Amino acid sequence: MREAYQSDLRHIVDDLVDMADLVGRALEGATRSLLEGDLGLAERVIAADPHIDERQVELDAKAVELLARQAPVATDLRLLVAAMRMSSSLERMGDLCAHVALVARRTHPSTAVPEQHQEQIARMSSLAGAALAEAAQVIAERDLALAAQVEKDDDEIDELMLEIAREISRGEGYSNRQVVDLTLLIRFYERIGDHAVSLVRRVGFLVTGDSLDTLHESVDVPEF
Amino acid sequence: MREAYQSDLRHIVDDLVDMADLVGRALEGATRSLLEGDLGLAERVIAADPHIDERQVELDAKAVELLARQAPVATDLRLLVAAMRMSSSLERMGDLCAHVALVARRTHPSTAVPEQHQEQIARMSSLAGAALAEAAQVIAERDLALAAQVEKDDDEIDELMLEIAREISRGEGYSNRQVVDLTLLIRFYERIGDHAVSLVRRVGFLVTGDSLDTLHESVDVPEF
Repeated sequence: MREAYQSDLRHIVDDLVDMADLVGRALEGATRSLLEGDLGLAERVIAADPHIDERQVELDAKAVELLARQAPVATDLRLLVAAMRMSSSLERMGDLCAHVALVARRTHPSTAVPEQHQEQIARMSSLAGAALAEAAQVIAERDLALAAQVEKDDDEIDELMLEIAREISRGEGYSNRQVVDLTLLIRFYERIGDHAVSLVRRVGFLVTGDSLDTLHESVDVPEF
Repeated sequence: MREAYQSDLRHIVDDLVDMADLVGRALEGATRSLLEGDLGLAERVIAADPHIDERQVELDAKAVELLARQAPVATDLRLLVAAMRMSSSLERMGDLCAHVALVARRTHPSTAVPEQHQEQIARMSSLAGAALAEAAQVIAERDLALAAQVEKDDDEIDELMLEIAREISRGEGYSNRQVVDLTLLIRFYERIGDHAVSLVRRVGFLVTGDSLDTLHESVDVPEF
């Protein structure tokens, strides 16, 4: 009985890692569809998002069932509460990937990202993907060794957001529509980075036993 | 004992309603600071956001404590889980209000909102405020009578977002920086509306006993 319960808890952690994997693939596909103008790929990313949503519904249902059946306390209770929050972050990250793909679809066959920003957007995406993969490892192993790296990746994402916002603001030759789209895109990537940070901080609260298992992101409007 | 427990549950609902009230005031202040160029007011809204964050920490701590101490099942368990999710939404709405105030502060003494969009932004904000107040009433009374109104307000917010995005895209005389700021602002208001909808849907799940207490917003990138 006790053993089955521990195995249920372990499954919840596995489910979070699986969700992170799905989101990572969505992110990669979304950015590729955006930069390469691949409409079919954009469609697939958009169509796959409900599967990530379903995974969250399932994970949360399991967590609530364990709360009801096992009445956990202390660490186990905190793990379940944290897992429900992490599943929300992952689900939201999936939405943001779908948002990127929606911009790719809307602007096809032209691209939303002007030539001079393609490398920056590719870098924002690869940093976000790295942060997510690191966060998944932190979740899987409950080991905070990689936590600092996730924060560093997120800082670099924020820097790139500011850099792009600054270049747009001072630059010429953009259509208004390009500016709207680019602004939305850099905001989406920035939010994905924020959520990756939020994931590792929640594991941090679990590991350190800090009572503060609620997390507040720094207020994040570009001061460009 | 049982009575104290019921009173604890009731307090959690009261705390949610208080948080909604704080967020409503932040929203009103943020929009006024933006449209009237009131720097002092913007500063106060930004400075007040950590208080909303603290309310969430306290509320969640109470909920976790009740989970540990009372091992609730059925409706009470669902209420506590929903309350933690609603507190997250409210906290995030507070952040978004602070984001609006940050844009107001950054652009002061000029305004981020060109004359021709002032009325639209004022309307987006007042709809968001109405949706939030209605959501608070739904939470307080666990009565879904106002739920449809919240969805309607949110639809109108989305319409205004599209209208502004379309006007910017086709319009002339905007600086790139104005376009960046306006894009961020309409996105912030739109997200506040989404969260109001999320609040009432969670109450809906509680009232109807629907097992689906996880919520997915429709993918919401403007198709302008």
